[in-house]
Amino acid sequence: MNLGRVVGTVVASRKEPSMEGMKLLVVRRLGIDDAETGDYVVAVDAVGAGVGEVVLYASGSSARQTELTRDRPCDAVVMAIVDTWEVDGTTVYRK
Amino acid sequence: MNLGRVVGTVVASRKEPSMEGMKLLVVRRLGIDDAETGDYVVAVDAVGAGVGEVVLYASGSSARQTELTRDRPCDAVVMAIVDTWEVDGTTVYRK
Amino acid sequence: MNLGRVVGTVVASRKEPSMEGMKLLVVRRLGIDDAETGDYVVAVDAVGAGVGEVVLYASGSSARQTELTRDRPCDAVVMAIVDTWEVDGTTVYRK
Amino acid sequence: MNLGRVVGTVVASRKEPSMEGMKLLVVRRLGIDDAETGDYVVAVDAVGAGVGEVVLYASGSSARQTELTRDRPCDAVVMAIVDTWEVDGTTVYRK
Amino acid sequence: MNLGRVVGTVVASRKEPSMEGMKLLVVRRLGIDDAETGDYVVAVDAVGAGVGEVVLYASGSSARQTELTRDRPCDAVVMAIVDTWEVDGTTVYRK
Repeated sequence: MNLGRVVGTVVASRKEPSMEGMKLLVVRRLGIDDAETGDYVVAVDAVGAGVGEVVLYASGSSARQTELTRDRPCDAVVMAIVDTWEVDGTTVYRK
Repeated sequence: MNLGRVVGTVVASRKEPSMEGMKLLVVRRLGIDDAETGDYVVAVDAVGAGVGEVVLYASGSSARQTELTRDRPCDAVVMAIVDTWEVDGTTVYRK
Repeated sequence: MNLGRVVGTVVASRKEPSMEGMKLLVVRRLGIDDAETGDYVVAVDAVGAGVGEVVLYASGSSARQTELTRDRPCDAVVMAIVDTWEVDGTTVYRK
Repeated sequence: MNLGRVVGTVVASRKEPSMEGMKLLVVRRLGIDDAETGDYVVAVDAVGAGVGEVVLYASGSSARQTELTRDRPCDAVVMAIVDTWEVDGTTVYRK
Repeated sequence: MNLGRVVGTVVASRKEPSMEGMKLLVVRRLGIDDAETGDYVVAVDAVGAGVGEVVLYASGSSARQTELTRDRPCDAVVMAIVDTWEVDGTTVYRK
């Protein structure tokens, strides 16, 4: 999984029918030090994450292993909202 | 998923039989700010996207989770046409 | 899928038995402008492609979705020979 | 698989239900010479690895091939703790 | 698949039980010209490859399509030992 910050949303009315009703989040990838990287992904929200929150997202076929996304053409899913993370004994982020 | 702009098409008459009839789009990957990146992919069109449109595409095994692409040697599919996307409270793109 | 040019072949007599008889092509990845990139892949040939031809190849599990490659330890397959591709209204390549 | 060093942990109370109870490790990718790279991943711990240990992790669908992670939205798993590794006849790392 | 040179081994006594008995090879990725790149992977050996040999390895779910690796948390497998490879009509490598 990767750490990211939800920074926005995508609206798409014309889409594969099985994607109806899914909330699409723009997630910036975070470095191990909580700095935003230039990289991002558009992920389906499976946990009710809001803009500004730090999340974990899974990619590839693992993104389809939630009830919401099973068998859908979805290759990234937000599957957790992060409370804290620690690196080398230091708290890098606390919600 | 990634955001991209459809910039062209590929024609291939000799191909794996299960790929017959599929429209192959050249999609440039877009940065989070709508700038075109140097990266691109050739994706099957599952939603009737045209050249110039901004789309979402899914990669890997998730690209086979549409009726059109199931069980085909297809690793990228355009599965939505984007209406708008927002980052940090600002509309980056509107169709 | 990605666009590539077949530039060579690999011979391997000692291999996983299920890979017997497969033609292994060295494929250089092409940029969107038909320039060769430094990147390459070794792909199984599913369409009778020859050295010098421009092809499409699929990667990952999608590379196993041909009759030839099903259930084999193959993560890249040439699944189409390109006739033409167009970008921004210009023909970039014609066979 | 990749070599990495466990450098921290992630706590996430709100998450996909199937991820309950899983320990989430921050793993820095190691170069072939044991130097830490800037790259990292958050991986589920399947072997009881602790902070500071050198591990192997598997990514993608292979990360779901443990009893703990099967059918979960998990795309990286620590599946071994490294005792030693050797390159060009030299021991690069010994636990 | 990618071309690589086996440069070492990894020993890990504590691991996911299904990985018992598998030989873990450190494989440096090779460029198309046989030069070693800085990139490497740890792959399960399915063909009896030795240190110094040039091999093909498959990644991702395709790495589980050998009898040895099926249903294991293994995302890279050495599935062939290379005899020769040719690029642009020139033999780049001969065993």
